Amino acid sequence: MTNNGNTLIDVPAGLRNVIAADTRLGDVRGKEGFYHYRQYSAIDLATACTFEEVWFLQFEGHLPARVELDVFTECVARLRILPPDLLPMLSAIAAAGREFHPIAGLRTAVSMLATLRDLLPLWDCDAATQREDALLICAVTPTILAALYRLRGGLAPVAPRADLSLAANWLYMVTGLLPDPIATRAIERYLIATIDHGFNPSTFTARIVASAGADIASAIAAALGTFSGPLHGGAPDRALDSLDEIGTADRIDDWVRRKLESGDRIMGFGHAVYRTDDPRSIMLRDIATGLGGDLVDFAVAVERRVVEILAEVKPGRQLYTNVEFYAGVVMELCGIPRAMFTPTFAVGRIVGWSAHILEQAENTRIIRPSARYTGPLAPQPIPPRD
Amino acid sequence: MTNNGNTLIDVPAGLRNVIAADTRLGDVRGKEGFYHYRQYSAIDLATACTFEEVWFLQFEGHLPARVELDVFTECVARLRILPPDLLPMLSAIAAAGREFHPIAGLRTAVSMLATLRDLLPLWDCDAATQREDALLICAVTPTILAALYRLRGGLAPVAPRADLSLAANWLYMVTGLLPDPIATRAIERYLIATIDHGFNPSTFTARIVASAGADIASAIAAALGTFSGPLHGGAPDRALDSLDEIGTADRIDDWVRRKLESGDRIMGFGHAVYRTDDPRSIMLRDIATGLGGDLVDFAVAVERRVVEILAEVKPGRQLYTNVEFYAGVVMELCGIPRAMFTPTFAVGRIVGWSAHILEQAENTRIIRPSARYTGPLAPQPIPPRD
Repeated sequence: MTNNGNTLIDVPAGLRNVIAADTRLGDVRGKEGFYHYRQYSAIDLATACTFEEVWFLQFEGHLPARVELDVFTECVARLRILPPDLLPMLSAIAAAGREFHPIAGLRTAVSMLATLRDLLPLWDCDAATQREDALLICAVTPTILAALYRLRGGLAPVAPRADLSLAANWLYMVTGLLPDPIATRAIERYLIATIDHGFNPSTFTARIVASAGADIASAIAAALGTFSGPLHGGAPDRALDSLDEIGTADRIDDWVRRKLESGDRIMGFGHAVYRTDDPRSIMLRDIATGLGGDLVDFAVAVERRVVEILAEVKPGRQLYTNVEFYAGVVMELCGIPRAMFTPTFAVGRIVGWSAHILEQAENTRIIRPSARYTGPLAPQPIPPRD
Repeated sequence: MTNNGNTLIDVPAGLRNVIAADTRLGDVRGKEGFYHYRQYSAIDLATACTFEEVWFLQFEGHLPARVELDVFTECVARLRILPPDLLPMLSAIAAAGREFHPIAGLRTAVSMLATLRDLLPLWDCDAATQREDALLICAVTPTILAALYRLRGGLAPVAPRADLSLAANWLYMVTGLLPDPIATRAIERYLIATIDHGFNPSTFTARIVASAGADIASAIAAALGTFSGPLHGGAPDRALDSLDEIGTADRIDDWVRRKLESGDRIMGFGHAVYRTDDPRSIMLRDIATGLGGDLVDFAVAVERRVVEILAEVKPGRQLYTNVEFYAGVVMELCGIPRAMFTPTFAVGRIVGWSAHILEQAENTRIIRPSARYTGPLAPQPIPPRD
């Protein structure tokens, strides 16, 4: 078959396993239950490093020396401040809609920021400017999200503090309270572990927009759109909602079997890539267990039974907990309100998207696949109308 | 090579000629210089139909009968009215930035509209609701763009008129004057011809976001991001800027040779798909010639010399005028200000994006390609830091 006069290349539906880009940023090895950023295990990084160190790694290609880290940390802490000309718009966004849509609100705010700052197309600016724009958007995103949350609740936004780490400052801006070090470190490890995860659909979206040479805010806004899709994954609140719905350990079996009979997905289980334990889930279970409490015990019990029942009902499907399952538990224990679970995911992931955008911008070839026309033979004459 | 434990499928860079989706919406046959919507030649449609008829065709799959067209026309005319809760935000957008960015402004406004209207994810609503949301966004886009333009110039927005066709109302809202029928029909034919054009990168972007199940505003906002990229094409003002720069017929040769020597692209010439005359360009040249005047004569002279010089300097490349070249001339002659050339393109194209989004929403498979990791072997131990 032809299109454009060229032979079309048939590939599996949804472009499964088709190489859409080369990357040095990392990879996911689904059968091994392993993923990495650059040449380091992402879980090792989440154990050994600060968020700022891993952010630097993804932007610069190497872990920072002490002096590099100091300069970088100070720079990104300074960029946290909410642009004053954005505040009236955040109030309008926070007041809009019956439901609270923080990811959509961030998309609107980032889109507006491009206009306020006259951001240049990636194609029209040098690598240093591209990097500056990316740092600004990553640094200000937590401030925007926390401000939207507080404004929605009728509270004044909490101004960011430059003396706090990104993770501590995030908790501080959302809750209004200085977080304890254990909660801060738990959230920091989660944020590091969610920076990147292979070529997920939102990352791919960001790279396509970047491949057209548009500004970085366009690419981030597009990625946020895909990220907001129910098929994307990354909504830890849904898994915690399920725990609430189950309620008590004696109701697990009934709940799971009812879900499966009605054909519903069980939130927090199964992943597009992993065919074994999701390494993020294992890390988050460890963190949750360290924090302790009834919710954790209950979550562990639910996980065990669901995995058992899934293995029985869907043999060979290898369904395990994904990143959503324990992420919700950890965030709940760290005092993050449920509406801010997915935004917390976004705070980490935006650094990953940005690193992909910067990498894509090194390439000057637009991503432009084809479609296969499957309608009636054309051209037909236009019929007379009554 | 493997990733996710699966063998990766290597394809040409930029996914060239790779089938990313099936579509019944149309196709481009680059070697023939032909493109179609559904089973009809797009140029035939632009000659024989109104914009509303072709919009209906792309949404519903068939040309409307008279009574269907009447209902549809009334419905979309009613949806033109600017949502009052959007107006303060449009004023803020129009006032922002040193430069005027109408496409970025539309992106922000569409993103905000999703929040104001609590638009549901495509995945969570039925086909009728998906269609309603699409009609709203397509119908209100010209009103948003015209309002941004007028507010930027310190003028009050012109309220849309439901008794005008989409094309006439567009000219009316931008200029504040009732357009004459010849200009209206010229712009209407341009708008019809730009609704769709194969699987261009912005259309692909819209379909990826839709494939994740997100709401239609997310998909349109993402497409606008890609559309704003300098590598995407679709900026008729750049071609007209070139005509201004050349100035007089005796300077054509010098100007073209200087451009080519410095490695610059010549705006309005060459296309990713066409290897012969762009049928849109031929139609727009006819329209321009019908309108007549010095600018048209000059454009025809420039086209002839540029094609001759390109054939001489880049033999075998088959570079012809693309849709941008005469689109700018036609819009100038119809009284559209240059800042609104690309927005006019967007007014037509948003219908095409929406039709693709609705089609993609029938499919429940997320578009998720892979990347090839090309960095150092992982995992490496995390080095001690100073």
